[in-house]
Amino acid sequence: MKFILKDGSVFETENAKNVYDVAFALSAGLAKNAYAAKVNDVLVDLSAPVNDGDKIQIITSRDEEGLAIYRHSCAHVLAQAVKQLYPSAQVAIGPVIDNGFYYDIDFEKAITQSDLADIEKKMEEIIKADIAIVRSEVTREEALAVMKERGEDYKIQLIEELPGGSIISLYTQGDYIDLCRGPHLPSTGKIKAFKLTAVTGAYWKGDEHNKMLTRIYGTAFEKKAELEEYLKKVEEAKGRDHNKLGRDLGIFMTSDVIGQGLPLLMPKGAKLFQILSRFVEDEEERRGYMRTKTPFMAKSDLYKISGHWDHYKDGMFVLGDEEKDDEVFALRPMTCPFQYTVYNNGLKSYRDLPCRYGETSTLFRNESSGEMHGLIRVRQFTISEGHLVCMPSQLEEEFKGCLDLAMYMLKITGLLDDVSFRFSRWDPNDKGKYIDDPKEWAYAESEMKRILDGIGIDYKEGIGEAAFYGPKLDIQIKNVHGKEDTLITIQIDMFLAERFDMSYVDENGNKARPYIIHRTSIGCYERTIALLIEKFAGAFPVWLSPTQVKVLSLTDRTAQNAKDVAEKMQRHGIRAEYDIRNEKLGYKIREAQLEKTPYIVIIGDKEAQEGTLSVRRRKTGDLGVMTYDEFIKRIDTEIEDKILD
Amino acid sequence: MKFILKDGSVFETENAKNVYDVAFALSAGLAKNAYAAKVNDVLVDLSAPVNDGDKIQIITSRDEEGLAIYRHSCAHVLAQAVKQLYPSAQVAIGPVIDNGFYYDIDFEKAITQSDLADIEKKMEEIIKADIAIVRSEVTREEALAVMKERGEDYKIQLIEELPGGSIISLYTQGDYIDLCRGPHLPSTGKIKAFKLTAVTGAYWKGDEHNKMLTRIYGTAFEKKAELEEYLKKVEEAKGRDHNKLGRDLGIFMTSDVIGQGLPLLMPKGAKLFQILSRFVEDEEERRGYMRTKTPFMAKSDLYKISGHWDHYKDGMFVLGDEEKDDEVFALRPMTCPFQYTVYNNGLKSYRDLPCRYGETSTLFRNESSGEMHGLIRVRQFTISEGHLVCMPSQLEEEFKGCLDLAMYMLKITGLLDDVSFRFSRWDPNDKGKYIDDPKEWAYAESEMKRILDGIGIDYKEGIGEAAFYGPKLDIQIKNVHGKEDTLITIQIDMFLAERFDMSYVDENGNKARPYIIHRTSIGCYERTIALLIEKFAGAFPVWLSPTQVKVLSLTDRTAQNAKDVAEKMQRHGIRAEYDIRNEKLGYKIREAQLEKTPYIVIIGDKEAQEGTLSVRRRKTGDLGVMTYDEFIKRIDTEIEDKILD
Repeated sequence: MKFILKDGSVFETENAKNVYDVAFALSAGLAKNAYAAKVNDVLVDLSAPVNDGDKIQIITSRDEEGLAIYRHSCAHVLAQAVKQLYPSAQVAIGPVIDNGFYYDIDFEKAITQSDLADIEKKMEEIIKADIAIVRSEVTREEALAVMKERGEDYKIQLIEELPGGSIISLYTQGDYIDLCRGPHLPSTGKIKAFKLTAVTGAYWKGDEHNKMLTRIYGTAFEKKAELEEYLKKVEEAKGRDHNKLGRDLGIFMTSDVIGQGLPLLMPKGAKLFQILSRFVEDEEERRGYMRTKTPFMAKSDLYKISGHWDHYKDGMFVLGDEEKDDEVFALRPMTCPFQYTVYNNGLKSYRDLPCRYGETSTLFRNESSGEMHGLIRVRQFTISEGHLVCMPSQLEEEFKGCLDLAMYMLKITGLLDDVSFRFSRWDPNDKGKYIDDPKEWAYAESEMKRILDGIGIDYKEGIGEAAFYGPKLDIQIKNVHGKEDTLITIQIDMFLAERFDMSYVDENGNKARPYIIHRTSIGCYERTIALLIEKFAGAFPVWLSPTQVKVLSLTDRTAQNAKDVAEKMQRHGIRAEYDIRNEKLGYKIREAQLEKTPYIVIIGDKEAQEGTLSVRRRKTGDLGVMTYDEFIKRIDTEIEDKILD
Repeated sequence: MKFILKDGSVFETENAKNVYDVAFALSAGLAKNAYAAKVNDVLVDLSAPVNDGDKIQIITSRDEEGLAIYRHSCAHVLAQAVKQLYPSAQVAIGPVIDNGFYYDIDFEKAITQSDLADIEKKMEEIIKADIAIVRSEVTREEALAVMKERGEDYKIQLIEELPGGSIISLYTQGDYIDLCRGPHLPSTGKIKAFKLTAVTGAYWKGDEHNKMLTRIYGTAFEKKAELEEYLKKVEEAKGRDHNKLGRDLGIFMTSDVIGQGLPLLMPKGAKLFQILSRFVEDEEERRGYMRTKTPFMAKSDLYKISGHWDHYKDGMFVLGDEEKDDEVFALRPMTCPFQYTVYNNGLKSYRDLPCRYGETSTLFRNESSGEMHGLIRVRQFTISEGHLVCMPSQLEEEFKGCLDLAMYMLKITGLLDDVSFRFSRWDPNDKGKYIDDPKEWAYAESEMKRILDGIGIDYKEGIGEAAFYGPKLDIQIKNVHGKEDTLITIQIDMFLAERFDMSYVDENGNKARPYIIHRTSIGCYERTIALLIEKFAGAFPVWLSPTQVKVLSLTDRTAQNAKDVAEKMQRHGIRAEYDIRNEKLGYKIREAQLEKTPYIVIIGDKEAQEGTLSVRRRKTGDLGVMTYDEFIKRIDTEIEDKILD
């Protein structure tokens, strides 16, 4: 029998009945390390039959798919252990996710974190027993019979949702049978290192009208060392998680009676917002932007023109009922049509272009409560929004200007090293999603590509990731848990000017259509603040710190001096606080450190007499004694230069 | 017969049948000037009968009520003229308002401004004919019969709404009969000077579901000179009206598809907002305020605690339906419960108090489209909101601090001379409107009165004008049309801390209730901007001007120099623009003047060679040639000192 290997070479062997035989013929070691295979580009178990001429690739831990299969089998082991420990539990679904897997299970009596150790112990036993994992293909009726006998209501429901006549695969490992497409490891003994990491609630099928199940999260690695390293990283990430640290530091809070996805920025968070938004507004003004301040709601009439009413209504908060009320309003999900309205106020000539409009703009998205997360997934957020209206001949320079501004913002906030770039293009085969004008798409995409290549930005292409009106550059960032989101986007729009009848009078006196660039310079402030909390673990650079200096009195004798020094700094424009409580210095220092204050200034008797300051810098430690003016010069320079350290 | 006069003296006369007889007996001149009278404190016609011992006050043009009666009779003359000119017109209601009167009329075919001259001419004839105005009292049935015969459907509806058995008064002047409580002038000839000023539409009973009637506005004065002076003032006011001037200057716009009451701040308006809000935020920070940034909506749960859901739901924009949806949200009409939530995050001790929270806060009020007006009556506005949480012992100092801040803001913006003060107290007889705790009210009101008297503020008392939770100081201002609104309010709240379970640990370790002060420092930004537009007729002080300097090139030769100078100023932080179009200097100067730019700088060949500027100041005219540094020093000082001139 002849098989074609991954590298295109041909391999000959006799009597190979299944993939395992081929692997073994290739090398006994490979067969030992094999998890699964691709036969003719389809992922299959090692037990899958082979035919002469098949294209075969053995999947091991070195392949990307290998780890996913490994973790998926581990999820089955988890389910098997649960069923042995809690026979009345019903298993629902158990997919692989980034960094691990989970299984949603309906327990008769909810379990907690403390029950995980027992489950892990049972899993160890199953792994040690090295139980074979066996695939079988059955009819829909057979599968239903198996699951009915096992009392697995969720599996029954899943099978019933499959089309009639489907061939269904079951995986059996000892006393456990699961409904699964596979492939899987050949036996449970292949699993070397795993850990159950968390228990949460999750609605069946993610729908909040369904029953809340128990979700057990876990992860698995090939080697114990890899698992340990990962767990250490996760532990460290927890300490940086904005959703915990941001609350601990008094940056934001949420409230059940106010609602999910509606965080309240506390004084420190509101200060961060103020610092960032003023910085962005001023920088934009320097770059020739004009500000607008437009209303947060509009009649449905506006959204009917923009297309949001037809395409995005479910994502908007609607006020009123079209059938009952004379006027129906909706909170805005985007600023575009509002800034277009400003542009359309008064005739524009080519001399007026480009018009660069910027707005510190609040937007609203009607998403379900379950999806809300800290400052990252919210129902209301404020974005450094902007639209540039320009002539076709200005498109390149304006796009470059937007990118330059975004890069500057990333550099200044320290996030530049953490981002990646995605050139999001349309999918010509998915015409329903896009305004169908291939010529315009070709032009805009080639323009954008030329600019990106010219600047030398390292980007991935994302086919089908464009906006419906044009291609985008998406600047992506991962949060501390590895979840990727778009931080900044710059979009070329070839079509909406026509929809809003936006025009200008060109050099020849003719009416012409402008291009529009949709862009943000720093993204949503809430999200940016979340990322900065995680980036700096709450220890913000001096220029961003809500409190820059904390002045501590050594004893009650120097309380007034400490207060005077802090107030003198405040008058100078430094965000200084003082702590003149009658507490031990060590206690006050520790508290200021916990608050991640960049500078701690201590006033003892000597400092009070000499008019000096004893200074500690958060990251560099004790700086010794210096005069007030020396200190001010130092911190002023750090603020002015926006030092990130 | 004996009558008691206004001054308490007793006047005797024989055979006085009615008020006119008494007036005539007092003096023939008084009788001639008499409009009506008060008999035993009730306003009546001169024809009203008198009895021995009555208290009598003759009303003439010198009395406040006199002008209202005079204008009301003029409204009847208007209606009579209309009925003569348009026999099919039906008259609805015609009350007196500030500065005049109107009559709502249902015309078969709508009339326009150009028809007013004819109506005025007919009114002149009616006045010249000096027709007697005669009161008659009839039963409901008789009144209905009269109006049915005259085909006056609106009057019929008004009569039908009166309780059965009512005695109804009709006023007849020649061929015209009106349903009216009176009193009226004795005859039409008393009217000396009137003018019809406008025609608009108005819904019957102000309800947008009713028919749209035609409203004719008019005014009347005792003397022709007074009328002319008034009309001149109105004309001048029109030139300052923010709703026109603000649009002409590109400060704001509205859009039919976005909706009424939702103005868009254009670049100049957004800049004014930015300048003012940053100034307020920084000044508040200097005064020890902490900022918050809280969400613009919350679940109904929050408003149920605050009481808004029960008492204010109709004024809120509600998202969702309590019967259908799991969560119902509402846009916030006030910031109070959000800042209370921030306060409640973490235990507070007496050492933490006072907590002064400030927020540049957007609020929403669901008012009907018809009531919307420019930047003054809007559905969404942003206010310099704030709440101070303090111990009872801190109340006086904190209230004084709020008042001092408000006075400072009024002084800096130039509005201080235009405001009046109202001490708004509860009405102990209207208990439904207030939280009923007379002891707390007595304390808070006496505290507030003591503070106001101590500072020597000249205030009026407004009984029944308090908030439901406490007394207020309202700082009132009139717009250019004389309409009064509240600009700033400072309120003491003795009760809401309990409702939100806000507390602090006092010096003895016991849980105690704080007082709350609700306050704004500069009011709603939209309203303040409107008042500033009217105050300065658009010619803002330099520190507030969206554009501070416009640099003009004299010829194409100095275009680059002009641009360079403007950009150098921009880098220095001056809001400078340039106009280097190839247009005549006079034209460019006129345009800059129309834009009310404070400084115009002209660069000719000589200035370009010598590096000097030729400077014109908006209010003081040509300042001659000066160096760049001299100019910068001058304008920097003006900005720094916030010179109002």
